[in-house]
Order: sequence, then C-alpha cells, then structure tokens
Amino acid sequence: MHRKNAPIGVFDSGMGGLTVLKALQEALPHEEFIYIADSAHSPYGTKGAELVHQFSQNIANYFECHQVKAIVVACNTASAVLKQQPLQNIEAPVFEVITPTVKSVQGQHVGAIGTATTIGSGAYAKALQEAGKGLEWAKATPMLVPLVEEGLTTDPIADVLLKHYLADLPNTIDTLILGCTHYPMLKGNIQKLLPNVTLVDAADATAAAVKAFLVNTQMLTETTQGKATLFTTGDAKVFNQLQSLAGFTFGHAKKLDLISEAELSNEHDSNVAVIATA
Amino acid sequence: MHRKNAPIGVFDSGMGGLTVLKALQEALPHEEFIYIADSAHSPYGTKGAELVHQFSQNIANYFECHQVKAIVVACNTASAVLKQQPLQNIEAPVFEVITPTVKSVQGQHVGAIGTATTIGSGAYAKALQEAGKGLEWAKATPMLVPLVEEGLTTDPIADVLLKHYLADLPNTIDTLILGCTHYPMLKGNIQKLLPNVTLVDAADATAAAVKAFLVNTQMLTETTQGKATLFTTGDAKVFNQLQSLAGFTFGHAKKLDLISEAELSNEHDSNVAVIATA
Repeated sequence: MHRKNAPIGVFDSGMGGLTVLKALQEALPHEEFIYIADSAHSPYGTKGAELVHQFSQNIANYFECHQVKAIVVACNTASAVLKQQPLQNIEAPVFEVITPTVKSVQGQHVGAIGTATTIGSGAYAKALQEAGKGLEWAKATPMLVPLVEEGLTTDPIADVLLKHYLADLPNTIDTLILGCTHYPMLKGNIQKLLPNVTLVDAADATAAAVKAFLVNTQMLTETTQGKATLFTTGDAKVFNQLQSLAGFTFGHAKKLDLISEAELSNEHDSNVAVIATA
Repeated sequence: MHRKNAPIGVFDSGMGGLTVLKALQEALPHEEFIYIADSAHSPYGTKGAELVHQFSQNIANYFECHQVKAIVVACNTASAVLKQQPLQNIEAPVFEVITPTVKSVQGQHVGAIGTATTIGSGAYAKALQEAGKGLEWAKATPMLVPLVEEGLTTDPIADVLLKHYLADLPNTIDTLILGCTHYPMLKGNIQKLLPNVTLVDAADATAAAVKAFLVNTQMLTETTQGKATLFTTGDAKVFNQLQSLAGFTFGHAKKLDLISEAELSNEHDSNVAVIATA
C-alpha cells in the first residue's frame, strides 16, 4: 500500500518532461514530485526500443526504492515503448502520456509528429484505433528537439524547419498531436503555421489523468507541501542552463547516478560483450 | 610493451567517427581496428565535459583491457575534453583529432564549427594559438548532427541550416575547420556555399598522425590482416541502419555493454545520489 503523502515520480529523457511536470503542479499543487531527467542518455528518440526500456526500468526501480505513490512517464518515446512492453516488478501505478493524450482528441482527422522511435512504434496509431479513430498522417521530426534545446524557438529557422516537416500534411487534418514533450515549446510557431488545426499535447491531459486517479483512490496528499525536486543523470550545470533557457523555474537539478545491475545480466547473451572497468 | 600485431582502438559517441576509421583503414590497410560507438550516450556534444570524460575513460579502460597498441579518439568533443583533462591509467598512446587537424591548417584566417562542448571548450582556439595562428570565428552548430543522422544531407533543408549557421562568417576567413566527425558528410554542401574557403577535417590528418607514430616506433603490424570490428553501446539495429544510410560498408556492429565501477566511486560525493538497481 502506498502512502498518501509519498512523492510522485516523474521522468523524461531530459528537459521536455518539465512541460508535463508544470501541468502536474498546476493540477496538484499540494503534491511532492521527484523529477528525473535521464540526460546522460538523452535523446531517447533515436536510441531504439530495447535501450529505452532498459533506461526506463532503471529509473522506475529508483522510484520504487523511494516508495513513490505513482510514476509518470513524461516522455512520449518511453511511453510508446512501455505500452508495448510494460515495466517489470513495479508496484506503483504507472501513467504514460499517450493514452490520456489520445483521449483528449476531439477531432476526426488526426495527424501526429514525434521522435523516430515514437512514430516508428505505431503507438499513437494503435491508441487512436482503440479509441475508434484513425491516424491519417504521422511524421518523425528529429531536429525539433535540438532546435528547442538550442533556444531557437523564436528564430526564423524554427519556422523553416517546421515548414519542412509539415510540408505534406494533408489539409483535411483537423487535429495534430504534438507527440514529444519538447514540442509544446513550439506550440505558438506551429499554431501560426496551422491556424485551423487543433494542437494536442500530453501535459494537461496527463495531469488530469493522474489527478483523477488520486481523487478516485483517495490518495491525494493530506499533509505535504507542494514541491518538486529535480535530478539529472547528466551534467547538472548543462541541464540547469537548458531549463532556464526554456523559462522553467523549478530550481536547480542535482546530479543522480543510476547504476544498473541489470546490464550485468546480459553477460550470458552471446551477442553481448560485457566488461566491468576499474 | 604493446604488441605490434595488437589492434588499434577507435571510438566516437556514434557514427561520425567512421569518417576517421575509413581514413585510418586507407592509410593503414593491414592494421586491425576495434571501433566503439558510444551510441547509448550519443550525442556527446550536449553532455558537458565531466560526463564526456567519464564516458571516454570507460571506453579507454575497455581498450586497455584488450591491450590495444593505440587509442584514437575519433570525436572532436571527447578530444576537446581530453586535451584539458587527459585519460587516467592508460598505457597505450592516445591520439586525439584536434592537434593533427590544426597542424594541417595552411591558411591564416581560420574559423571553426563544432558541437557546443567542443566550441565552448576553446580547444581549437588554444591549439591554433599554440601553432602560432588565431581562431577568428567559431560557432556551435548542434543541429548538424541530427541533420546528418536523419539522412538529409541532400535535402534542401541542409543548405538552409548551413546558411543559418554560417550567416555571420566573416568573408576574410580562408579556412574552416569542420570540428565534428559528422561534418565531413556535409563537406560538399559546405564547399558549395563557401567555394573559396578551404575545408579542413580530422580524418586524413589524424590517420597520417597515427601512421607516422607507428612507422617511427616500428609498430606497424607484420602479420595481421586488415580488418575492423564494430561495437555500439546502443541499439545495434539502429546503428547499422545509420551507418548504411551514410554509405559506410564496415559490416554489422554488435552490442557492447560497458559497466563502470568508477560511477560507484561517486558515492562519497555529497552532491551525488547513487543507487544500484536490481
């Protein structure tokens, strides 16, 4: 049984999930959040499903050790992977972003942009199908993450890149899923290019799903003060520059090292060479 | 004492270093090479110096265990970091790409492009200064790596991005250092935009430096057949797709897991939380 006043664990490959954390804090102002940015392995979108699963499992194990009352996968790539292959031995309820995002779609003609792994996984197509809708257009847009992380959302190059990726978007599309937690930072640019298209992202829908669960299970905190503690597996200084550049004000992230003994178990796989270095 | 017939270890954060491996194979057709792409942590350019040093040390430790006769750091970011803080406890001679690249510069008015970490390190400016030259213009160009890895070098968006980054290049510049091993794959595009500028990259200069060392120390192989074995710390399928997209024909890379006990030593750093996950 999880404690009501336990923290909620939130993770992403990097900074993008802060868009989800922000929505979670707005919806649940009294909860305590632990956010892990797996910046050492960022971006997830180009790494392939198996590796993303391993990274996600390591972080979930950390959260489980810290007895969080819920885990929010604030990353579309990890969500896509975990929908196909769930986390193992995790007792806390796990919330991914794809199901609530798809549930919030109102339109009938839906497109999606995301990382190569997210789009390649077909997770959005499948989730939309299960919701009785179809995915009529989808595109992997890998350069949008480095664009955002370089702080170029207001530079003319942002529109050039968006036009490049959206060039063949059918004009019948009425809803575009921003299938990466970085993309809400480009929402203004995309809306300007597509004034008649409804843009849907994961942040508010996911926060609403988590809130509904906590209310329904009577697990809303009673005593803790709302706060968020940020960790990064990468360089804390680099991460803090990034989040400041993007206008987030969560306070400084600290460095976190996750050591995976799971990697050692690969020793018996003949296709894998393993060495422990001194 | 290293064996003449031992392999040469070559590493990069990902696929870019294959441009250096190709030049090494051309210069040293009888040598055996082991190439490690640290794709699990790719790209290095956005990760910060401390982390890049840790990643590089782990790989160098692996090479040391395998008794390579030389280590080639086929990555500008890692080279920049290791010039400032050398690898520890490595007996094999280590070749970075910055020194030979700078030595091959003939012009007097030099510019450089590279990752944020490479440019931010000032390594090229320092190396040029030591060679009696100056670095008159330098720019971090983070989106060029995902551009190459997306296979867009022949797409019009490549020229748009290059024009964006090179917009303020002074017209007095006669030499531009392509300070990232991915950038030779954009050499044609850049040369077309800058027909009067000499483009300098790491591949041939580094291969020549390694060859000169092996000749001078009488360490050229006598018996081994030329070959290259590729490993990736990331997803082998993803890596092999990338190298095939870029036109490399080295054969399939295998998955390699590097476990670092060095990470555990961070346990005593009060700013670092460490957990071993099951």
